[in-house]
Amino acid sequence: MTEVRHRRGGRSASAVVGMVGAGQLAQMTHQAAISLGVDVVVMSDDPGDAAGLAGAKHLVGSACDHADLLRLTDRSDVVTFDHEGVPPELTRRLLAAGHDLQPPPQALRLAQDKGDARRLLHAGGFPVPAFVEVDRGDLRSVERFGAEHGWPLVLKAPRGGYDGRGVEIVEDLCGFEHSHLASSSPRWLLEARVDIATELSVLVARRPGGWWKAYPVVETVQEDGTCRELTMPAAIPDELAAQATGLAANIADGIGSTGILAVELFVTHDGGLLVNELAARPHNSGHATIDASVTSQFENHLRGILDWPLGDTGMRAPAAATVNLLAPPRADLDLAAGLPHALEDPTVRVHLYRKTNRPRRKVGHVTATADTVDDALDAARRAAGRLVLP
Amino acid sequence: MTEVRHRRGGRSASAVVGMVGAGQLAQMTHQAAISLGVDVVVMSDDPGDAAGLAGAKHLVGSACDHADLLRLTDRSDVVTFDHEGVPPELTRRLLAAGHDLQPPPQALRLAQDKGDARRLLHAGGFPVPAFVEVDRGDLRSVERFGAEHGWPLVLKAPRGGYDGRGVEIVEDLCGFEHSHLASSSPRWLLEARVDIATELSVLVARRPGGWWKAYPVVETVQEDGTCRELTMPAAIPDELAAQATGLAANIADGIGSTGILAVELFVTHDGGLLVNELAARPHNSGHATIDASVTSQFENHLRGILDWPLGDTGMRAPAAATVNLLAPPRADLDLAAGLPHALEDPTVRVHLYRKTNRPRRKVGHVTATADTVDDALDAARRAAGRLVLP
Repeated sequence: MTEVRHRRGGRSASAVVGMVGAGQLAQMTHQAAISLGVDVVVMSDDPGDAAGLAGAKHLVGSACDHADLLRLTDRSDVVTFDHEGVPPELTRRLLAAGHDLQPPPQALRLAQDKGDARRLLHAGGFPVPAFVEVDRGDLRSVERFGAEHGWPLVLKAPRGGYDGRGVEIVEDLCGFEHSHLASSSPRWLLEARVDIATELSVLVARRPGGWWKAYPVVETVQEDGTCRELTMPAAIPDELAAQATGLAANIADGIGSTGILAVELFVTHDGGLLVNELAARPHNSGHATIDASVTSQFENHLRGILDWPLGDTGMRAPAAATVNLLAPPRADLDLAAGLPHALEDPTVRVHLYRKTNRPRRKVGHVTATADTVDDALDAARRAAGRLVLP
Repeated sequence: MTEVRHRRGGRSASAVVGMVGAGQLAQMTHQAAISLGVDVVVMSDDPGDAAGLAGAKHLVGSACDHADLLRLTDRSDVVTFDHEGVPPELTRRLLAAGHDLQPPPQALRLAQDKGDARRLLHAGGFPVPAFVEVDRGDLRSVERFGAEHGWPLVLKAPRGGYDGRGVEIVEDLCGFEHSHLASSSPRWLLEARVDIATELSVLVARRPGGWWKAYPVVETVQEDGTCRELTMPAAIPDELAAQATGLAANIADGIGSTGILAVELFVTHDGGLLVNELAARPHNSGHATIDASVTSQFENHLRGILDWPLGDTGMRAPAAATVNLLAPPRADLDLAAGLPHALEDPTVRVHLYRKTNRPRRKVGHVTATADTVDDALDAARRAAGRLVLP
């Protein structure tokens, strides 16, 4: 494709948003940006990444390379992120040089480093699971924490994990010493296991000046650390939903997030809320907003980072459910082959990311809307089944 | 942008749709195609056309050039159209060579030639305004038609008109002889003026095998031949809506349309329906479906031409209204400058096509949803006003 750019100064000019990363979140951000006349320029090492395939302008470059990041900021009015893999020292350097990063580095930081997040949220009075940060090799501290909170414990790599990677359940001190993560991670974050009744996610869209709107609370079902299903609104008491929303909005305010902040929460069996993880970007738990909300999380991310008025986060249907599509176990199975069959339910919305099949990789999702969450979930599961097993 | 193609045979392969034309209809088709994992390759003479700017793969080529059309068919599983400007002899030639054109040439023909449309619809028993086709220079036939139906008459160029171009109201025979159209068009289509109470549009999505779904009837407000506003559903009696829908579906069946067929209708003051024009592609009157329907006209156009099950055409809100944005009178006014102000109503959805400002050119649209058509129209007009007069 011939690249044509009508940027600042052009007659039909509008904002250019740079996005570090080019996966499905960047792809769907580009798709939303088309309506607003906004250009999204994505950056990753492979032009065949999802956003590039969908027609976003693509720069080949690394999120860990200052010169590459500069090429992106030079082409953009604002730079945002579809993953957390930009080293904090680089975002600070760009900020110091006057580049407009949204969300700002201090908000990104809590999504980048789980240890930082635990410490800062705890210090800010937000409820988090019991945790300890330990330098590699300090087995005495591990033993003490285990004695206090009881084994098994949850061991996390503070940085770089996603979809269950970077998290291990360790049964005892011996298991800990032999775990892969303990030997590979330079720092250890240990947490007491939480007695989880339900997992929730709250998405807050926020502008730099502090205006924010939250989406209805979402309930997520995780499997091996990967979000498999989500339902909106979560089937929880109104009071708990209000409490979760308030918690998320306070965190967004506290860290000064812009665009979407996803706050993942545990509900314990005694009804308490604990903050699990943060993501300062559009998030998998918000995919139902594309088809079931007045304004999608992707459009509100753009509006938030561009400091434009936020769109309505209300729902356009009583209930919605999303089922993530994981790559089929065999690389020769073509997900798209099942598409016509999946589309037979006229109320189902299919989203395929066109990513290559690596086992358990998220390659698409299906959203259904209905009068009840159960009906929506049934429909979404049925359609997902037709895609994954064509 | 580096062009990367994962086509037939690729692991994550899916359909490639070629589209002749690269305007806003192609742009929004591309946007819808992203979710389905479908590649849209557009063709026009300017890579800076709306669809190219939004990231659709773009071929530079002419809709009137057989070799260019062949380059498009060679890259595509199916070829479709965002305008009617492909000469019928070329579509017939491509079809004869085995290329998959959707809609097929015989359905395109009625959208391409208003004379053909009038004649064939009339022969098929569909209600149309009184009309006559006259070879250029045959003033005697013009005079006779005028005497029979009364002046003023409507003079149309059978081919090539849009947005009011190619249509003139002529007051009398003298006015006719001096009209620009009479001297420039090789053939004349004359129609009796219709006593129009309301203008409607019915969009029918159809698959090759005959399965079809219609959207709720839309009411359109035209000004100087250009659609300015539309409301969905039209404020007409249920019986009339059913009659209009039946008429449109019968036409779609009769001509074998695939994808979207838009049937524009006049309602006369005595409550009768007359077919005005046909468009065998996504249509301006269907833009509210993006934000107000379960499945947009663009996705259903793709599903129809690809012979996939059609999506639900039901509405996600009680009422919707769309206001078209025409280019500001001064070329230096930037529509996008008013965007943040227009977005202040959180229920309003803005779509900017990033086309350059040529006076009265459609450069975007705004859709609002509400409990009533009047409220939706108020909101859409307010937001449109903020965009056009920033």
